[in-house]
Amino acid sequence: MNFDHSSKVQDLMAKLSTFMDTEIYPIEEHYHNLVASSTDRWQTPQLMEALKDKAKAQGLWNLFLPKEYLPHGAGLTNLEYAPLCELMGTVMFSSEVFNCSAPDTGNMEVIAKYGTQAQKDKWLLPLLNGEIRSAFAMTEPEVASSDATNIETSIENKGDHYQINGRKWYTSGAMNNNCKILIVMGKTDPSAARHEQQSQILVPLNTPGVTVVRPMAAMGYLDEPIGHAEVLFENVKVPKENLVLGEGRGFEVAQGRLGPGRIHHCMRLIGCAQRALDMTCERVENRIAFGQPLSKQQSVRESIAQMYCKIEQARLLTLKAADNMDNYGNKVAKNIIAAIKIVAPKMACEVIDEAIQIHGALGTSQDTILSATLAYARTIRLADGPDQVHMMQLGKNLVLGRNKKL
Amino acid sequence: MNFDHSSKVQDLMAKLSTFMDTEIYPIEEHYHNLVASSTDRWQTPQLMEALKDKAKAQGLWNLFLPKEYLPHGAGLTNLEYAPLCELMGTVMFSSEVFNCSAPDTGNMEVIAKYGTQAQKDKWLLPLLNGEIRSAFAMTEPEVASSDATNIETSIENKGDHYQINGRKWYTSGAMNNNCKILIVMGKTDPSAARHEQQSQILVPLNTPGVTVVRPMAAMGYLDEPIGHAEVLFENVKVPKENLVLGEGRGFEVAQGRLGPGRIHHCMRLIGCAQRALDMTCERVENRIAFGQPLSKQQSVRESIAQMYCKIEQARLLTLKAADNMDNYGNKVAKNIIAAIKIVAPKMACEVIDEAIQIHGALGTSQDTILSATLAYARTIRLADGPDQVHMMQLGKNLVLGRNKKL
Amino acid sequence: MNFDHSSKVQDLMAKLSTFMDTEIYPIEEHYHNLVASSTDRWQTPQLMEALKDKAKAQGLWNLFLPKEYLPHGAGLTNLEYAPLCELMGTVMFSSEVFNCSAPDTGNMEVIAKYGTQAQKDKWLLPLLNGEIRSAFAMTEPEVASSDATNIETSIENKGDHYQINGRKWYTSGAMNNNCKILIVMGKTDPSAARHEQQSQILVPLNTPGVTVVRPMAAMGYLDEPIGHAEVLFENVKVPKENLVLGEGRGFEVAQGRLGPGRIHHCMRLIGCAQRALDMTCERVENRIAFGQPLSKQQSVRESIAQMYCKIEQARLLTLKAADNMDNYGNKVAKNIIAAIKIVAPKMACEVIDEAIQIHGALGTSQDTILSATLAYARTIRLADGPDQVHMMQLGKNLVLGRNKKL
Amino acid sequence: MNFDHSSKVQDLMAKLSTFMDTEIYPIEEHYHNLVASSTDRWQTPQLMEALKDKAKAQGLWNLFLPKEYLPHGAGLTNLEYAPLCELMGTVMFSSEVFNCSAPDTGNMEVIAKYGTQAQKDKWLLPLLNGEIRSAFAMTEPEVASSDATNIETSIENKGDHYQINGRKWYTSGAMNNNCKILIVMGKTDPSAARHEQQSQILVPLNTPGVTVVRPMAAMGYLDEPIGHAEVLFENVKVPKENLVLGEGRGFEVAQGRLGPGRIHHCMRLIGCAQRALDMTCERVENRIAFGQPLSKQQSVRESIAQMYCKIEQARLLTLKAADNMDNYGNKVAKNIIAAIKIVAPKMACEVIDEAIQIHGALGTSQDTILSATLAYARTIRLADGPDQVHMMQLGKNLVLGRNKKL
Repeated sequence: MNFDHSSKVQDLMAKLSTFMDTEIYPIEEHYHNLVASSTDRWQTPQLMEALKDKAKAQGLWNLFLPKEYLPHGAGLTNLEYAPLCELMGTVMFSSEVFNCSAPDTGNMEVIAKYGTQAQKDKWLLPLLNGEIRSAFAMTEPEVASSDATNIETSIENKGDHYQINGRKWYTSGAMNNNCKILIVMGKTDPSAARHEQQSQILVPLNTPGVTVVRPMAAMGYLDEPIGHAEVLFENVKVPKENLVLGEGRGFEVAQGRLGPGRIHHCMRLIGCAQRALDMTCERVENRIAFGQPLSKQQSVRESIAQMYCKIEQARLLTLKAADNMDNYGNKVAKNIIAAIKIVAPKMACEVIDEAIQIHGALGTSQDTILSATLAYARTIRLADGPDQVHMMQLGKNLVLGRNKKL
Repeated sequence: MNFDHSSKVQDLMAKLSTFMDTEIYPIEEHYHNLVASSTDRWQTPQLMEALKDKAKAQGLWNLFLPKEYLPHGAGLTNLEYAPLCELMGTVMFSSEVFNCSAPDTGNMEVIAKYGTQAQKDKWLLPLLNGEIRSAFAMTEPEVASSDATNIETSIENKGDHYQINGRKWYTSGAMNNNCKILIVMGKTDPSAARHEQQSQILVPLNTPGVTVVRPMAAMGYLDEPIGHAEVLFENVKVPKENLVLGEGRGFEVAQGRLGPGRIHHCMRLIGCAQRALDMTCERVENRIAFGQPLSKQQSVRESIAQMYCKIEQARLLTLKAADNMDNYGNKVAKNIIAAIKIVAPKMACEVIDEAIQIHGALGTSQDTILSATLAYARTIRLADGPDQVHMMQLGKNLVLGRNKKL
Repeated sequence: MNFDHSSKVQDLMAKLSTFMDTEIYPIEEHYHNLVASSTDRWQTPQLMEALKDKAKAQGLWNLFLPKEYLPHGAGLTNLEYAPLCELMGTVMFSSEVFNCSAPDTGNMEVIAKYGTQAQKDKWLLPLLNGEIRSAFAMTEPEVASSDATNIETSIENKGDHYQINGRKWYTSGAMNNNCKILIVMGKTDPSAARHEQQSQILVPLNTPGVTVVRPMAAMGYLDEPIGHAEVLFENVKVPKENLVLGEGRGFEVAQGRLGPGRIHHCMRLIGCAQRALDMTCERVENRIAFGQPLSKQQSVRESIAQMYCKIEQARLLTLKAADNMDNYGNKVAKNIIAAIKIVAPKMACEVIDEAIQIHGALGTSQDTILSATLAYARTIRLADGPDQVHMMQLGKNLVLGRNKKL
Repeated sequence: MNFDHSSKVQDLMAKLSTFMDTEIYPIEEHYHNLVASSTDRWQTPQLMEALKDKAKAQGLWNLFLPKEYLPHGAGLTNLEYAPLCELMGTVMFSSEVFNCSAPDTGNMEVIAKYGTQAQKDKWLLPLLNGEIRSAFAMTEPEVASSDATNIETSIENKGDHYQINGRKWYTSGAMNNNCKILIVMGKTDPSAARHEQQSQILVPLNTPGVTVVRPMAAMGYLDEPIGHAEVLFENVKVPKENLVLGEGRGFEVAQGRLGPGRIHHCMRLIGCAQRALDMTCERVENRIAFGQPLSKQQSVRESIAQMYCKIEQARLLTLKAADNMDNYGNKVAKNIIAAIKIVAPKMACEVIDEAIQIHGALGTSQDTILSATLAYARTIRLADGPDQVHMMQLGKNLVLGRNKKL
């Protein structure tokens, strides 16, 4: 475990930090206002394209993509990406600026890793260029998707094509006007062994039979202009070559995306929590109640100390997980990936909630990002597996002595 | 402490329960959809008027108003009102059906208690009849309003009228099209003793110089069609007879409203939490994961047991507070009023949050009331005094041995 | 639910309170010193007999025994006994003064309820007179006794007698020199239905084959002079007439004792917690750090406020449980009995732990009762069923809608 | 931050691990029994000397002493010492085997760093050789010693000697028969500036006027044979050359010892917690309740997962603190030293408490180290500064932006 950064990463950190300071924070409020006042809430503000161009020009692009996929991406390890991802996490929309936003990152990794050349040409390249966006349709309203074997959408092999029927929701990204492609998980063979029933398949959003039913709220937020869609699939026909990797290999593909996906969320949430702490430290110096600044209250000092302790611990655990993933692979590192997925979202919820309490009414308002980031953190306690599923796996593995030495 | 209900209250409970079952729950989803799809988000759906008429016809009207104000209201004690208020709390909009919704209840009490006959004729009667709505403008963005002595809006005595200047926010209710009157708190004499600087005054919303600037979000929710407004007062002139009780008596008036206001929020939040528990008990029976209903998981049973324990304790504490208020007055009961204000909102946050976790994605969605009620509970940890202020007062009083025997 | 006390109970409360003030608190430290310096740590100090005589003379005797057993006992309901039991709970050894200490109370109830006349004459009368003490041998080291069906001690029917073999531990009271009789739980028929295998039997401690192996520590405390024994039973022969109620009825007998036993522990623990709060309120006024009394620190005020809120809620829940037991019986009230057993010990642990923190080094010392009462509270989270078993039952019942209306 | 271990440290870890496995764990129970059954509870069992000789022979000696003091000690950095100290922490008495036990480690560092040659010759050498033990007399019963400026013991300059008067308690180590020397903190000049009033002075335990009054309990434990003493100083005369560093420099000396002292406690507590988790993982596999091993219960899995997450986070935070101390010095690293002192003891309390709950009655008994280590962890939440003082400092520093970049 060596958490020191190479000079390459230090350079990227400095560049990204400068970019955030000069290009992002100054327009943050303006951006949110643009979205809120837009006539089409699913249209990304034009502003975004200019920001993306600037980021690309500075080499701050596809930073998430590991070295296997060079020359695409920055070729960073998870450990190297961590401080960058955390920094992007401090502003809700900034990951997109650097083409590092979920769920596209996961989708790009999947296609890069498991896709055919044709799939790559058609979908990966525009995604890597930030020309289109994508979504991943997995969770279903009718079944407990925390147990992914429950997923019921059918992907029937009809000889020359697949036919898809089912209902998905919380398909994040699918509301956005620029979303063109879905990766859909469903059953190709309900009679196969439990973990071989599912497959993943590429479905262009404009395929006949695909209906974006409505935007789903996440703790009161529609998360415009990205959104989370309910999507209905009615006799949707897609060519056979759209299947990813092979029939029955849906779980294998899912495993490949979930490790990085989870740790990226954790990194971003650490950024959210750190910003909440920074805002709080500033606020308490300037807010007077009962004759003195809040910062002189022992209870406020205790809150701030606790926030720091929680953030710092979660950050270190995330770095260790990143390091283990880099050195031993996602499978061997699964215990500590589970651990950060349990720890970081809950930590972020607690830290941001405390920041809101100290901010008072302002903290609950649209004038800070606190309540929106709390909503984000809260949903991540469920997305990509609820806390309980990760605790189940981790607890079980620990008792069995699996992966003990890491 | 006798928590048994009289037959009169048992009758009201039965009638209200039937009303909820037949008139409210069946249209709950429809009502929320009407609001969400309305072209004017600050217009209460027409449906509400019909519901109010039915409630009035059944004597389920102004249930909150204590017996001093008979023949208006039901003449109930706080203890008697508790189970009714809790039941109304299970549906976000139902208090209004029975003319029992904040902040109108507090405003009606204030005018009934401290108002002149002219003030009553002009504002109290239409409020009691449910013809108009009202708001209370206290919290300000620029100062820590948790310490009410900080409030800076000026109410200048100009001889024949008062002139008001200041900025308020989170003026709940002021967004609604039917809101006609504000009670405004501000300083008539900044040079007076600390607790004699403030006064309260009646300000019709259509007075020149009053601008409703924007709706404030509360944890991502605008709470349409009621809303929380930012309101700007620029050289607003109101007649001298609009002053409530007298110059410098703003704190006295505020005390009168806050005891009941706080306990009503607690009662409603207990209703929210109880409904979250009931929904959870039903959900876990029918949701299958890892081969069995969630209800068979020991961790789920532990969660449900904890939810029950928390709710039941907060309910009993609230009943005791109600009983003490009834028997000893709000001033003597201030310790236990502080206690429920500390306990009930936090309890509701915890219980509803746990219900959301068990509900999975559905719990974060707009398809249940869970996330909206969590937002409500969360804001009440700040509204009417943040937890910390109540803990400060309660802790101080306990050390000094004040009100020890209750 | 009427928690008002009758004048009879108010009289008892006043008498008991005076007795505590004049006879118990003044000698509390002396009593603990006597025990600590005694050459025989299992000998109750002589002082106790004089206190018992005084208590008996004042009618403060066998207060726990309900009216079915009049003229023995005070004939109080659970609700009436609650404030008395709480008050006794404030001093570790004071329950014995009033012949109200566990496990004798449970043993007396069992013999009074299920015993033959001969059993009553021989064991109940001397127990009711406070002449001897007793113990209940249930928990075993070798099996998870939280699931009582696991208990393995054998009670073999040998025609004219029963023969007992097994090992028990945490047999509370059995270390004391004055302990004369054990009630032992064990299997008379391992082949019977799960809940009909166990029986309970009276075993005089001096029966050949009974060995008190050693005192068991409870969180570092041996709880002299009462103690918790490991007891070995090797071919112990007892007459057939010593069986309680009948073969296979051990669970039925256990149910009879556990309801009252659990609520008594909860009442005592509320007394412990209340005393911890009272001590804390006094301490923080007089302890100076960083230039002011601790009582001026906002964090200390918050701690004290939280302690009050927790105690008061647990007390009310316990009163409701007592009331439900009185009015509906222990079986119908089982949900709320489970609830208080989950809530009160944990509450006491939290409150006393916080009191220790505020007391500093003194709080961890032998100079206050705080650390000893924390140890007591901690063990009750396991004794009479660990929290988890009660949560399992309560969670299950709530989902099934059982006992919902109480 | 590079947490990888050098081969030198890996060798020491392997040697220490083998030593623990072959020499310590096998005799752990025997050692505790020897202490418990000894006629003189303050006499370290003879066995200890043999263990110390073996450890010394293997170079496992004075591992805590940093490289400034070579050839004494192992010359390790804090980061290098961390895994060794953690491993020693798994057995209550094992630090002494390697001459690494508190408070001697701190005392040795103080004399090594600030002592005169004469002081070193007389006291440091026998301490480094493990021939004698020592204690640090700081905390006083009469004042809140959490604010060290409160300390009132007087050290009067009498021209040719100092005269000491005062009462100390929780002077850890001073009960042991082999304790020969105290470092005493007290006021040489009560009229000086707040942080220049105190001095530290060496006082042989057998100096006339020094009375060891009694052993102090720590959460029910006397911690034989080391113990925590109440010590009375009555006109105690010591030569002027016994003063450490100089008059008025007591705080400076205290700062020097507290950084390392605090981190060592944290490392040991992580060892305690890890062992509690390991014991729990083993226990739940073999304990059957309700028809299956405890390890199959979801709630048990969640507990185990949480224990792992807490331990791992605290461990990483402690490693980072060690690394910062090594690279930037204790003063610059003060924020993160405060953080681990807040985090690790509380973490250990929570983890061990949960382990006790899962172990049932056994967990509360003398048959495992769980309850004793919980008592240790609990007292460390107060020793060397209560949590609240560290949170006060950390919170204050964070608001002021001090030491932000570490």
